[in-house]
Amino acid sequence: MSRSLRALPRPLKSPGAHDLGLIVSTAERTSAAACFTRNVFKAAPVLLSQDVLAKSGGRAAAVVVNSGCANAVTGKQGLEDARDMARTVDALRAARTADASPPAPAAQTLVLSTGVIGQPLPITNVLNGIALAHANLGAGFDSWQGAARAFMTTDTFWKLRARSFTLGGTKVRIAGIDKGAGMIHPNMGPPPAPAAPHATLLGVIVTDAAVAPAALQAALTYAVERSFNSISVDGDMSTNDTILLLANGASGMERELQLPPASDADADPDAAHPDAALYLHFRDELTAFATELAKLVVRDGEGATKFVTVSVEGARTFQDAHAIASAISTSSLVKTALYGEDANWGRILAAVGAAHVSAPPDPARVSVSFVPSDGSEELKLLVAGEPEKVDEARAKEILQREDLEIRVVLGQGEESAKYYTCDLSHDYVTINGDYRS
Amino acid sequence: MSRSLRALPRPLKSPGAHDLGLIVSTAERTSAAACFTRNVFKAAPVLLSQDVLAKSGGRAAAVVVNSGCANAVTGKQGLEDARDMARTVDALRAARTADASPPAPAAQTLVLSTGVIGQPLPITNVLNGIALAHANLGAGFDSWQGAARAFMTTDTFWKLRARSFTLGGTKVRIAGIDKGAGMIHPNMGPPPAPAAPHATLLGVIVTDAAVAPAALQAALTYAVERSFNSISVDGDMSTNDTILLLANGASGMERELQLPPASDADADPDAAHPDAALYLHFRDELTAFATELAKLVVRDGEGATKFVTVSVEGARTFQDAHAIASAISTSSLVKTALYGEDANWGRILAAVGAAHVSAPPDPARVSVSFVPSDGSEELKLLVAGEPEKVDEARAKEILQREDLEIRVVLGQGEESAKYYTCDLSHDYVTINGDYRS
Repeated sequence: MSRSLRALPRPLKSPGAHDLGLIVSTAERTSAAACFTRNVFKAAPVLLSQDVLAKSGGRAAAVVVNSGCANAVTGKQGLEDARDMARTVDALRAARTADASPPAPAAQTLVLSTGVIGQPLPITNVLNGIALAHANLGAGFDSWQGAARAFMTTDTFWKLRARSFTLGGTKVRIAGIDKGAGMIHPNMGPPPAPAAPHATLLGVIVTDAAVAPAALQAALTYAVERSFNSISVDGDMSTNDTILLLANGASGMERELQLPPASDADADPDAAHPDAALYLHFRDELTAFATELAKLVVRDGEGATKFVTVSVEGARTFQDAHAIASAISTSSLVKTALYGEDANWGRILAAVGAAHVSAPPDPARVSVSFVPSDGSEELKLLVAGEPEKVDEARAKEILQREDLEIRVVLGQGEESAKYYTCDLSHDYVTINGDYRS
Repeated sequence: MSRSLRALPRPLKSPGAHDLGLIVSTAERTSAAACFTRNVFKAAPVLLSQDVLAKSGGRAAAVVVNSGCANAVTGKQGLEDARDMARTVDALRAARTADASPPAPAAQTLVLSTGVIGQPLPITNVLNGIALAHANLGAGFDSWQGAARAFMTTDTFWKLRARSFTLGGTKVRIAGIDKGAGMIHPNMGPPPAPAAPHATLLGVIVTDAAVAPAALQAALTYAVERSFNSISVDGDMSTNDTILLLANGASGMERELQLPPASDADADPDAAHPDAALYLHFRDELTAFATELAKLVVRDGEGATKFVTVSVEGARTFQDAHAIASAISTSSLVKTALYGEDANWGRILAAVGAAHVSAPPDPARVSVSFVPSDGSEELKLLVAGEPEKVDEARAKEILQREDLEIRVVLGQGEESAKYYTCDLSHDYVTINGDYRS
């Protein structure tokens, strides 16, 4: 390493801004799961975190996050820097419990970075920041809020949520932080991520439920597909997208929840594996919580003035419904029409017809409507392929609200998917025309 | 038909604007080929034209175009209207040569429509316009210019080009009109178009070369993939995208150029089929001409301030190079950075990594540079996966020009592809936030 060749340490963001966060589990054994970007150019922290999880068999105890610099496309030095971040956290944790002097444990720290791509980390500052954060660890709301603020880049508000639910008789808690406002069209898969493709979206969810690594990963993969992988701000997939989930069992559940065999996962909850029902309950609570976190990102979409739910129903498969919802949610023409509050539903149709699906829709069976957010009657635009005579005044009324749902019914099957997106505004162009300066 | 139930005829566009064009071949036998949108929701004129070509075996003698209304998602009435347009042209043509009174020929008219989706054609006006256009047919520049103006929607200039070249000793001429400024990300295939998936782009190319239908279609399919299917304004694929090619043989070539067997098409031009070399020559001239027409659309991209060539080299297949060039060309973040003249090349990398390809790039072999339009030295941004120390002043200099090339070298093979795109500006949002009014 040649730290000395570097220029004087620069702060990651403007002096005084929060740019480094640290989350540490104090339990003895913490399960960990993750979904990482499918971008071919995975940032150094993604590669590092994948490696840690592979070697530990789904165990991790700490997450360190920095904003301001994504440590992406930073070559070999970038990998060294990410490793140094993780090692520093591991060393600080080990020092804290040094009285027992156990053999050096496997690496237990996962790393998240977000910010500009292609610039090296000011690593000395980052390592100093880690030491400072470790010295100031706390369990109160202020500490959580500080961590959430460290995630922010173009975000206009910090994103932190918590709730509790009962799992098999034990009250468990779940808390999550995420960030993201642009470069948001995630497509994340479980590690090792297959080479395929879409945000910088970062999120950490922690729970005191006791869940074994395999069950944790399966639940997270399912939840991410229906939450973070179902949002789009601008259709751009980042090199850094990562969602981490830690479960440390501190709730006092009697034993770790195990993953039921695949055939049981969606079968009769009363049959077979003793954890089948419990697993589905946990998975669905996690999915609902992840969806709440994911929606915050769309609410904070760069330049967004609308929050739009795109519902595609009557598809043959979830994948087809998801692909069509994604095509509508990423169409520049749909998004500018929403910004202009223009009921140009032809653009919605064009997007439906352009989606890559396994079972192409039959134009004569497709229906489209606007669903107002106030619970009043939906406005039909197209019914079974035939255009309705649209009441433009009513359309305008619906479109003028901040929240709106576009509903597409395909008439092909029973599957459905929801996507959450925003409009494309002048401010989006302003924000991204000169992000770096 | 229930014309009487319609409201009073409305003009397609503002009164006095050119909104109807007619192109007629006066030769006895004219070959025709076409590439149509792969959108599942094909507009009525697309379905009609596919049908005409299928029944005639690749022969057509006329093209009628209207702008202002796309006749898309207009149900059964839309199909009847498109058919009425074609029938009216056929009837007028038949009446003109009525002295010979031949048996009624197969339908010979292809239809193009562009404009708002989901509204019915003011068909009485359209049919009257056809009669007027037919009465005023001419071969001079003014007539061609008038036809080109009839194609325009949000276009700010009419798009007409012509050139000549020698084919097998005979001088042949080629002329073309196209239109498009938004909803531009075509993905067109030969008829019948496989149900798969992207603009409204309309184009007609005519030549007096003598080319048999199969050879004409093969050459057009090849040319469209490398020209019109390699441009993007906003990533949206229209329900109406169509490129038509008519060849009437009026140049006096001795005989119709025939399609050589597939194995010969890219083989040694001196071997095998007598038309092998001639076919390749025609195909390449057509591709170059189509590329010139396609670039005009990007030059007129809605709100565009930059013309950007995206070159992807060193790919294993043309398809992979094309997919990566497309991913860069449609990234909102890349396009807003270009608008902001910001050398944010990390966004280019993120787009490369997000593309759907058969052979994912190896990050350690990828290089990226900006190629200035004045012939001066290229600016290297990334070399074999390692970021360069970028001279920001030089980058700014290159980015401030209207024309710019982004070059990506993958280091995987010998194939390459070019894409033509523009930036994403405030004006794009303004234009599309309220297109209908």
